[in-house]
Amino acid sequence: MRRRGIYYVFHSANTPLTKIEAPLPNLQEGEILVNIRYTTLCGSDLHTYCGLRQEPCPTILGHEIVGIIEEISPGHSGLDAAGSKLRKGDLVTWTVFSSDPSAATYQPETPQKNSRLYKYGHRQITDSDNFHGGLASHIVLRPHTCIRILPKGISLSVAATINCAIATSAGAIRLAGPIAGKNVHIAGIGLLGLVTIAMCKEMGAERIIASDINESRLQLAQSFGASHTFNIGQQGNAEQLQNLSVDRFIDMSGSPDAMELGIDTLQLHGQAVLVGAVFKQRKTGINAEQVIRKMLTIKGLHNYNYTDFSVAIDFIIKNWKKYPFESLIELEFPLADINLAIDFALTNKPIRVGLFADSPPSNDQTNG
Amino acid sequence: MRRRGIYYVFHSANTPLTKIEAPLPNLQEGEILVNIRYTTLCGSDLHTYCGLRQEPCPTILGHEIVGIIEEISPGHSGLDAAGSKLRKGDLVTWTVFSSDPSAATYQPETPQKNSRLYKYGHRQITDSDNFHGGLASHIVLRPHTCIRILPKGISLSVAATINCAIATSAGAIRLAGPIAGKNVHIAGIGLLGLVTIAMCKEMGAERIIASDINESRLQLAQSFGASHTFNIGQQGNAEQLQNLSVDRFIDMSGSPDAMELGIDTLQLHGQAVLVGAVFKQRKTGINAEQVIRKMLTIKGLHNYNYTDFSVAIDFIIKNWKKYPFESLIELEFPLADINLAIDFALTNKPIRVGLFADSPPSNDQTNG
Repeated sequence: MRRRGIYYVFHSANTPLTKIEAPLPNLQEGEILVNIRYTTLCGSDLHTYCGLRQEPCPTILGHEIVGIIEEISPGHSGLDAAGSKLRKGDLVTWTVFSSDPSAATYQPETPQKNSRLYKYGHRQITDSDNFHGGLASHIVLRPHTCIRILPKGISLSVAATINCAIATSAGAIRLAGPIAGKNVHIAGIGLLGLVTIAMCKEMGAERIIASDINESRLQLAQSFGASHTFNIGQQGNAEQLQNLSVDRFIDMSGSPDAMELGIDTLQLHGQAVLVGAVFKQRKTGINAEQVIRKMLTIKGLHNYNYTDFSVAIDFIIKNWKKYPFESLIELEFPLADINLAIDFALTNKPIRVGLFADSPPSNDQTNG
Repeated sequence: MRRRGIYYVFHSANTPLTKIEAPLPNLQEGEILVNIRYTTLCGSDLHTYCGLRQEPCPTILGHEIVGIIEEISPGHSGLDAAGSKLRKGDLVTWTVFSSDPSAATYQPETPQKNSRLYKYGHRQITDSDNFHGGLASHIVLRPHTCIRILPKGISLSVAATINCAIATSAGAIRLAGPIAGKNVHIAGIGLLGLVTIAMCKEMGAERIIASDINESRLQLAQSFGASHTFNIGQQGNAEQLQNLSVDRFIDMSGSPDAMELGIDTLQLHGQAVLVGAVFKQRKTGINAEQVIRKMLTIKGLHNYNYTDFSVAIDFIIKNWKKYPFESLIELEFPLADINLAIDFALTNKPIRVGLFADSPPSNDQTNG
């Protein structure tokens, strides 16, 4: 008889999640069953919970996840994205989406915009399609999901953030162009902003300028490598930023005020990448004459591609102890306390809260 | 004794140009003296004349020029940018700027933004620096000017427009990314818009969509290859444009309304290039959420680089008879009638007026 798993269902905004116990699905060709060990709550999970974003309901929230492999179906290549052999018991993470390369709309540079996309943590629960979100005991990974084995001993809480915040930051830096020796301005100091600062530091940026409206976030920015900080609620920032000769502006804030300031203060050949503004808002005003005379480039980034994911993995494996990433997961809860965790996150607005598995992995999951 | 030349001086806005006769300068190392045969009045010349742009005065306007080589100084390589040997009597055109590659600010991709730049038709006249504009009998080409020999028989009036309008259009298309098979929307149907349409046609664009507020310009757009036209003063354009699945938007109009419509109606992965807005204006409002979700790119282009210039030359040599370029120079005047030509241009707003040399080239200029 098939074993059973647990998932927590989001039905509608501002309503506590409910627990469901259900049989684990029989794997289809190419699928992998993972026992979830840790999930972090992303800002977009909380936006959905509050009704600021819409998802098809009922759904299983949570997409920043790590887990250990419990079962590999025969049709799977048996390899991770780095070419390592996948085994039961391996700690893994994976892209937030699987993207079918046989679809006409598939583009290797932007698989996340394919029309045939399966996005974990963003799907409706049906009889034949469940166990697809992070607030659960298990998840079924579909074919065309990019999977990577994580080294033993890595912090589960930090590793859980790779497949959303960290990979998106890697994508933003890719789009921004070369970073070494450049002056980079990062607006919005949440997890994406902090990761981007640390990545710019590792890539040899000259000046790393962090801006936010929250002083404590600006202090945090310094511990991730920011050389300059600006509280953009204050006067005189435009002139000071202009004096810093900003080459790259990466917006994680989604604030039109911040985007306008950031684009306006780019110097000749400057490049802006907009990432944060994934919600309704007023228009952002750009000075087209300056965009032309300074030959600026402005790009939008939504999610990330497979390369960004691999860059993010390698970055965290190398640097997770070097910067205070673990301190960003300010409180941890067992998965059974998910509704307490959500309340805490909404009330205290930490960078992240973490949810760990209620029970240890069973013996048959760790036999390597 | 040194021979003498003529130039027409612009002193201040809305004041007729005055004629000056002066000795032709002794060439410095690497310089070339050209006898100007034809100059077209660019929109920016007229903007300066009306006081909408500032230039250091007194100056010699005119930068869309062709002429024949009269003297080559010993320090010049003796070759044009295509590697052909330069000879006295050759018909040539050249980049609107010379850009010193030894300057720290020199970037091969954007020589036009170098701090050590010498820009023809945009310089103050001094005792030691004159004969640098197109409204003159002669011009001295400085080192690091990219020169190209033109074939015999080419239309002088069309060839004159290469080094501003045509090269800038080539630059806009380069920045817009691949054109073949794409749907391109071009706003602002002056010379740059028409050239861009014809270039897109030659490059195999799928749909070429022209927009303007002037119906006669839209008709002209069709004769250069536009497949669809939109009068953007009318209602309902946004929806129609969205239905055309626009991949590339190139703005030559400089109108914030046109730029907002053009950027808003790009589809997924769309790219916008802003070229026309080189004057003060209200801010252009962009929907940052759509820039992100559709992963749009917006770039500004000012002038062009050496590659764009060569592409423009090759395009015109191949296509100047295929499209009705000659009809765009609506009236021609002898250079001596420059003030009549300016009045005509301001009153009738033709695409271009042309100014031809008053006198034939002297014998010693055409001995090949």
